[in-house]
Amino acid sequence: MSTEHSYILVTGGTGFIGSFTVLQLIERGFKVVVIDNLVNSSTEPLQRIKKLANLKEDIIFHKVDLLKVSEVESIFEKYKFYGVIHFAALKAVGESVYKPLKYYENNISGTINLLKVMEAHAVKNIVFSSSATVYKQSVEGKGLLESDDLGCVNPYGRTKLFMESIITDVADSQVGWTGVLLRYFNPTGAHPTGEMGEDPLQIPNNLMPYVSQVAVGKLEKVHVFGSDYNTHDGTGVRDYIHVVDLARAHVLAMEKIQKTASDEKSQVLTYNLGSGTGYSVLEMIKAMSKACKHDIPYVMDPRRKGDVDTVICNPALAEKELGFKVELDLTAMCTDLWKWHKIQKWNV
Amino acid sequence: MSTEHSYILVTGGTGFIGSFTVLQLIERGFKVVVIDNLVNSSTEPLQRIKKLANLKEDIIFHKVDLLKVSEVESIFEKYKFYGVIHFAALKAVGESVYKPLKYYENNISGTINLLKVMEAHAVKNIVFSSSATVYKQSVEGKGLLESDDLGCVNPYGRTKLFMESIITDVADSQVGWTGVLLRYFNPTGAHPTGEMGEDPLQIPNNLMPYVSQVAVGKLEKVHVFGSDYNTHDGTGVRDYIHVVDLARAHVLAMEKIQKTASDEKSQVLTYNLGSGTGYSVLEMIKAMSKACKHDIPYVMDPRRKGDVDTVICNPALAEKELGFKVELDLTAMCTDLWKWHKIQKWNV
Repeated sequence: MSTEHSYILVTGGTGFIGSFTVLQLIERGFKVVVIDNLVNSSTEPLQRIKKLANLKEDIIFHKVDLLKVSEVESIFEKYKFYGVIHFAALKAVGESVYKPLKYYENNISGTINLLKVMEAHAVKNIVFSSSATVYKQSVEGKGLLESDDLGCVNPYGRTKLFMESIITDVADSQVGWTGVLLRYFNPTGAHPTGEMGEDPLQIPNNLMPYVSQVAVGKLEKVHVFGSDYNTHDGTGVRDYIHVVDLARAHVLAMEKIQKTASDEKSQVLTYNLGSGTGYSVLEMIKAMSKACKHDIPYVMDPRRKGDVDTVICNPALAEKELGFKVELDLTAMCTDLWKWHKIQKWNV
Repeated sequence: MSTEHSYILVTGGTGFIGSFTVLQLIERGFKVVVIDNLVNSSTEPLQRIKKLANLKEDIIFHKVDLLKVSEVESIFEKYKFYGVIHFAALKAVGESVYKPLKYYENNISGTINLLKVMEAHAVKNIVFSSSATVYKQSVEGKGLLESDDLGCVNPYGRTKLFMESIITDVADSQVGWTGVLLRYFNPTGAHPTGEMGEDPLQIPNNLMPYVSQVAVGKLEKVHVFGSDYNTHDGTGVRDYIHVVDLARAHVLAMEKIQKTASDEKSQVLTYNLGSGTGYSVLEMIKAMSKACKHDIPYVMDPRRKGDVDTVICNPALAEKELGFKVELDLTAMCTDLWKWHKIQKWNV
């Protein structure tokens, strides 16, 4: 099937990683339709994308809730889609523990609805936003492989794991499906111009949004959870990836589908997206201090339940099969993040 | 909370195991409301239950589809429930491979809807119809323990596993929940009067319904899949349980909830329901031949993909904590099954 006259549907396309992917899809010549329920985002990123991509026309956007199957259906009736990049999901780990049904309903029932409508319209190409959280992470320090054991410790992670299973079962049930499951490690950074980035509405859960808010003076100090881990400086080591790199992997995944999809068979391809290199919490704080040119206060706190020493990926498969390799280093992540937060601060 | 003036909601209560449980709940003095979408059953078992339990009034029944949350909501507005026994689910393994979305939607989205409405009405006691299929079954021949590794090879099994997880996460998210997850091994048998039993609409997937239909002349011969398993006669060994025993375990589970539920904490209890004794396919055919007093023709076929030598449970935990032990043996299973099928044949 030619993609020339058909669209890529991006669900959750106004969110953090979604908006960066929309920008790069457009820059690579894809025609994009964005849907989002705007529960955790606004349409503002679409204006930023329009500016960054020098577009004359607005990006096509529809406010759609995946839980309302008739809304999804109407989008598939309006446009002819080549494939879907499915970001739409709730993602706050902590909230998922207190409100699991909200997470299961939004993420699982929403994905079931999307797949049902895709199946009905014979749209069988999907790139799915998964997460390193699906790994059991029992092999400390070793770069995780796509074939490693899976298992999650919180409802959010389980929704990602279950969505991977559901997509896989759907692909196995019929010919013609291609699913690409992308397991993100720790996305951070912002657009190099500083004009687009993550805009968490609440106090952030993840390290780098938190560090940024301390850097910019919105929060007092960084809490470092655990200083007695089995790592070189005692703090947890993670595999950070620049959001611009991460978004590029989605474009490569869609191009991989264009090259390999077949009406005669189905395939599900799973790739880690990370650098394969780990940085400790203290290294990240230090790198951010360097970018913003002032100290970032932090305090050592006890370990959090469920955290492990080191989580890094083995990125070899994505390099081999997608041709994906990270290009932006720790300095770029922190410099771009700092630019974004400075501009945000000026805007407030 | 007293159950004196409140009801037990039985979802899927017109199905095979559901209807036997409804009968025993009523016999033990519980007030029952039955809901079912009647996709794979009819209301006929409710008439049988009424007769078997010598009831003057009809059993309370409402045709409700768990996918229609407003229908579920209206039931919870109409009645005050102490707890729910949740049977409603699609269960054909083979079909689940070809129509996974149908299974995920019905079983998962349906359960999410049910739990949402339960939560909204502060009904926090649930007995869930799970299955031995959730076990990875890697430990051949050893009785499976509730703590053994989980993992499924087909979408049907995954829906059961995911539903167990969702119920567990909901219980963990708040105090006051009690979930009892009952993992059935191989249910068979019928009511000892022969007046109530399983009524598969299609050619049955499971051994004993198939054997019964051969016994009664509806099907020509039994296909025995695999004669080179590592068992005493080369055919697969499974743990069969009489449906009357199985139904009793649900009543005991609800009574366990009455004894142990607390407003201050949540608990999720998981029990195997089986005898702990295994019988081979050939032993089952022989036992059924004895019950029907004529030979049952069978043919040896190659192994089916995914089948293993032996699947039996360790029933110790259910005995210790529920006071549940099977009382009906292989002869009872086959005699009762034969009575039911003979009566069914006469009725045709």
